[in-house]
Amino acid sequence: MTDAILVLNAGSSSLKFRVFDAQSAQLDLILRGQIEALYTHPRFRAVDRDGDAGSCDWGDGYRLGHQGAIEYLAGFLRNHGGGLRVVALGHRVVHGGQRFSGPVLATPEVLDELERLTPLAPLHQRHNLEPIRIVARMRPDLPQVACFDTTFHLTQSETAQAFALPASITERGVRRYGFHGLSYEYIASVLPQIAPAAAAGRTVVAHLGNGASMCAMIAGKSVASTMGFTAVEGLPMGTRCGSLDPGVILYLLDELQMDTEAVAELIYNNSGLLGLSGISADMRVLLDSREPRARFAIDVYTYRIARELGSLAAAMGGIDALVLTAGIGEHAVAIRERIVRDAAWLGAELDETANRAGGPLISRASAKLPVWVVPTNEELTIAQHTRALAGARMA
Amino acid sequence: MTDAILVLNAGSSSLKFRVFDAQSAQLDLILRGQIEALYTHPRFRAVDRDGDAGSCDWGDGYRLGHQGAIEYLAGFLRNHGGGLRVVALGHRVVHGGQRFSGPVLATPEVLDELERLTPLAPLHQRHNLEPIRIVARMRPDLPQVACFDTTFHLTQSETAQAFALPASITERGVRRYGFHGLSYEYIASVLPQIAPAAAAGRTVVAHLGNGASMCAMIAGKSVASTMGFTAVEGLPMGTRCGSLDPGVILYLLDELQMDTEAVAELIYNNSGLLGLSGISADMRVLLDSREPRARFAIDVYTYRIARELGSLAAAMGGIDALVLTAGIGEHAVAIRERIVRDAAWLGAELDETANRAGGPLISRASAKLPVWVVPTNEELTIAQHTRALAGARMA
Repeated sequence: MTDAILVLNAGSSSLKFRVFDAQSAQLDLILRGQIEALYTHPRFRAVDRDGDAGSCDWGDGYRLGHQGAIEYLAGFLRNHGGGLRVVALGHRVVHGGQRFSGPVLATPEVLDELERLTPLAPLHQRHNLEPIRIVARMRPDLPQVACFDTTFHLTQSETAQAFALPASITERGVRRYGFHGLSYEYIASVLPQIAPAAAAGRTVVAHLGNGASMCAMIAGKSVASTMGFTAVEGLPMGTRCGSLDPGVILYLLDELQMDTEAVAELIYNNSGLLGLSGISADMRVLLDSREPRARFAIDVYTYRIARELGSLAAAMGGIDALVLTAGIGEHAVAIRERIVRDAAWLGAELDETANRAGGPLISRASAKLPVWVVPTNEELTIAQHTRALAGARMA
Repeated sequence: MTDAILVLNAGSSSLKFRVFDAQSAQLDLILRGQIEALYTHPRFRAVDRDGDAGSCDWGDGYRLGHQGAIEYLAGFLRNHGGGLRVVALGHRVVHGGQRFSGPVLATPEVLDELERLTPLAPLHQRHNLEPIRIVARMRPDLPQVACFDTTFHLTQSETAQAFALPASITERGVRRYGFHGLSYEYIASVLPQIAPAAAAGRTVVAHLGNGASMCAMIAGKSVASTMGFTAVEGLPMGTRCGSLDPGVILYLLDELQMDTEAVAELIYNNSGLLGLSGISADMRVLLDSREPRARFAIDVYTYRIARELGSLAAAMGGIDALVLTAGIGEHAVAIRERIVRDAAWLGAELDETANRAGGPLISRASAKLPVWVVPTNEELTIAQHTRALAGARMA
């Protein structure tokens, strides 16, 4: 049996997981996979170092939920290879509010507190918390750690976090929290080895995945970010609109007679690259398409990145380095090229060969603004926190 | 009798006016004033070259409306000095939509078309149009010209104008229109005389009045701006919130159980400097205050200007000049100082003496980024358009 740390990232209809070797100094990755399409057409897939490690398709209409998915996963892990013994669980939780300044052991009291933050992230928080409750019922002895996407940004000034709203509203927690904090924390943790000047200086990190945001860091601390109160603000994303005139929401409600549910559906699930293109939320599909609307979606996407880059540089009084990460940042060569070319005014110059090769440095050595590609690993950050906090209780 | 062009700027409860000498080459200003607090406690005040030119207080509760105000103003002008004969009217109209690429003679057909744009600017459009209808009934022969706050920005690319929403929404007109276009047009028209390099180059103009926005111009053409679909987006203003995570609106509706009317009241009338400070929407009051909340409001205000300056510089691929205008831009020495200091990373360096003196150049001669103070004059721009379009019919 191998002692393992299980990291879970639970959504409304999916459960992503990674399993790390708890005994190895570097927390070696043993296994990763997901159960997707819960409640509709659940499918399981796991991959280890050798490739396929298992799969399952429950068929259309099989109503496997979070509880069933976790039970299935527990059984799978017990029987995988020589057997995996989960000694601690780490969870990605979108919202830690203002109370939690870092990862915490998810005691029943902590869970109740986190539950109260649900109004701040109605589409994510309860799904993130559900597996913690389920596991706590199954194995109350097992240490579980909640890691938040917000805490990395608590270093931001009150000025940077504020919306220009009355205190009566902001006191309820309406402020910029920033998200993708576990990704930014990971990048900040590895940057000293990869790019010491970027780690020590004024650096913008662009997390360009299905969700997307950018964070301005000085010496590895967040000073500003593009996401605000919810995970919908800032850059356009796969299906989220990013920044939007608040008057548009009133127009949708008052003039188009939409209700808030329909508006949420629109701005979270039918906007962004998908909405602009009318084709796909997947950047790979858009890059392969010759449709004018696909090109337009890419234009808007890269344009907003360029605008936010200028805005975040201003937040730091200048910029010393740019780091690209997450799916699009790590893999979309053509998007990286446009981002670097749009940043020419800040001193970026593309090294085309290095960009095609994936970096890590994709700007010319002589460029005033170095641009790096650094793969992110939020799950490893969660596993590290989990080991550190569960520590003695794991033994 | 002097032939005069009357320029009107009508709001929900006020009517601002300026009267220009139609015969003078430069359209000399004869008179300016306003009737405020319509329907509640109407007061009239007019000022000419010699100072007070007249005033009236109808008392509390007197229900003078737009019709009565215009009739009163018409009578006042007929009898002022040697008598003023209004030969044409120019009106500030917030929204010209996508159909009107410049000022137009306000024929009944045009008015109907403009009325249809009301859903795009529910708080302003109908009030802007009402005096045109009233005058058309009183004096159908009198040429009236509608000048729009949006048309200056029609030079922006589709990419810059787009929100990341589906075509089904954008086709209804949901895009960034930018506003304060008559102010930007005026600045662009005088800049060649004041600062030829700024007029020809990549320049950000910050219109910092009770409403506030910033516009990026290349060679005097708008390429991007901070206001979007409505006049609430972008910078924090006297009472408007500026940019706001759209998720905040959903939170206010779903979690705080506000209705859309209350939300509109909050983000248009109780936010911005007033909301942040809890003291006043007036920058002069905040600058004189020692309250921490007043300072905080100023911090957020100047911080967002700095961020948007970086964003707009990015939209132009760099910046050659910054121009400050409107009430705060023209008069708030301390705010100008902070804006220039925050722009140090772009090459701005304050000339303190010049700043206290009001410019026009308030940066050091050696600074890479020149910063100018240029008083705006939207009404003159409207008067010029009115004379040009009314032309033959005025004779």
